[in-house]
Amino acid sequence: MFMDKLDWRYAVKKMDASKPVSEENVAQILKAIQMAPTSSGLQPFKVFVITNPDIRAKIRPVAWDQAQITDGSHLLVFAAWDNYTEERVEAVVAQHAEERPGTREALDAYYDNLKAGYLPRDARTNSEHAARQAYIALGFALAAAAELGVDSTPMEGFDPAAVDEILGLKEQGLTSLVLLPLGTRADEGDWLQGMKKVRKPLSELVTNLD
Amino acid sequence: MFMDKLDWRYAVKKMDASKPVSEENVAQILKAIQMAPTSSGLQPFKVFVITNPDIRAKIRPVAWDQAQITDGSHLLVFAAWDNYTEERVEAVVAQHAEERPGTREALDAYYDNLKAGYLPRDARTNSEHAARQAYIALGFALAAAAELGVDSTPMEGFDPAAVDEILGLKEQGLTSLVLLPLGTRADEGDWLQGMKKVRKPLSELVTNLD
Repeated sequence: MFMDKLDWRYAVKKMDASKPVSEENVAQILKAIQMAPTSSGLQPFKVFVITNPDIRAKIRPVAWDQAQITDGSHLLVFAAWDNYTEERVEAVVAQHAEERPGTREALDAYYDNLKAGYLPRDARTNSEHAARQAYIALGFALAAAAELGVDSTPMEGFDPAAVDEILGLKEQGLTSLVLLPLGTRADEGDWLQGMKKVRKPLSELVTNLD
Repeated sequence: MFMDKLDWRYAVKKMDASKPVSEENVAQILKAIQMAPTSSGLQPFKVFVITNPDIRAKIRPVAWDQAQITDGSHLLVFAAWDNYTEERVEAVVAQHAEERPGTREALDAYYDNLKAGYLPRDARTNSEHAARQAYIALGFALAAAAELGVDSTPMEGFDPAAVDEILGLKEQGLTSLVLLPLGTRADEGDWLQGMKKVRKPLSELVTNLD
């Protein structure tokens, strides 16, 4: 159960490189990412799954030398679309029309309206919107990992331009958002392990309007 | 299991107003939101849980008259901090220092560095960063709801300025991001129910770098 793992999961600082995550578990985490809902079904992001040691060794120094990047067995990189384009939206429409016969007309009406709103906007506004959708998928990945008992450490502490360069993201119209190493917590050497989990009380985070 | 509910969940278009979500389930969804990880533990957002019929009736017309807002039993509104401030960051530091005795010095060093980076940035950059964190929590809420068999429909299709006005968010330094009605799918009257779920194939969404 995901709900039972909310306290179990934490941002592991020291992963045990001798305990890789199984490919079956990685596949399930990717499935959760794939099934995450996104605005108008656009899924405006890509996920890179990096096991290659050379690439991870290149990324680590531009990410504050965080050891989980190489001690984990799989490094996920979430990258958002740098903009919405006619082609990208039309690809979504085409897939929906193919998989849901008879909906073409309604889809065209809906997505023509969407394009009229999105395409004139500046790239930053659109990329930020895309980034938010990727973060829903990040939430799903974190939830799935916890449910499976897989450790994961979301990281925004890195140089996005450097990671974009290493992975050639700009040429693909993408921009890196967040790193998510997957691995197994080490028994020793993690300053955060065993520390009390700190969260704002619900009374502060939530307002009830009855 | 959350993983078993990935196909079960969908953006319900027609909720049955006679089948409210139990307070116990709502509490569990809020717990998931509370426990969602956020950048540097800032939790830079608030969640409004609205059962009040008058307030929901006011929000519905500024959200394309989407019926789930009033047919669901609880309307969650995620709202991000409009900026990072000295006070907001210091409140996080104070709570951590209190709940983790002996860490004050390390916390000050870490968050002084964070403030040096964040506070000079423009409000939009900071608010966008806060919004992304809220979307991780949104992902956790959606995952928790699915696990519990609670229906939920994330909505970005609304006028944020109007919702901010209705809820008095500006005065609280907040900006509305997304609506999430919780409820129970109706047996009839939902055009989306029963439609094939469409997602990009993994081959398109994921790139493996082995």
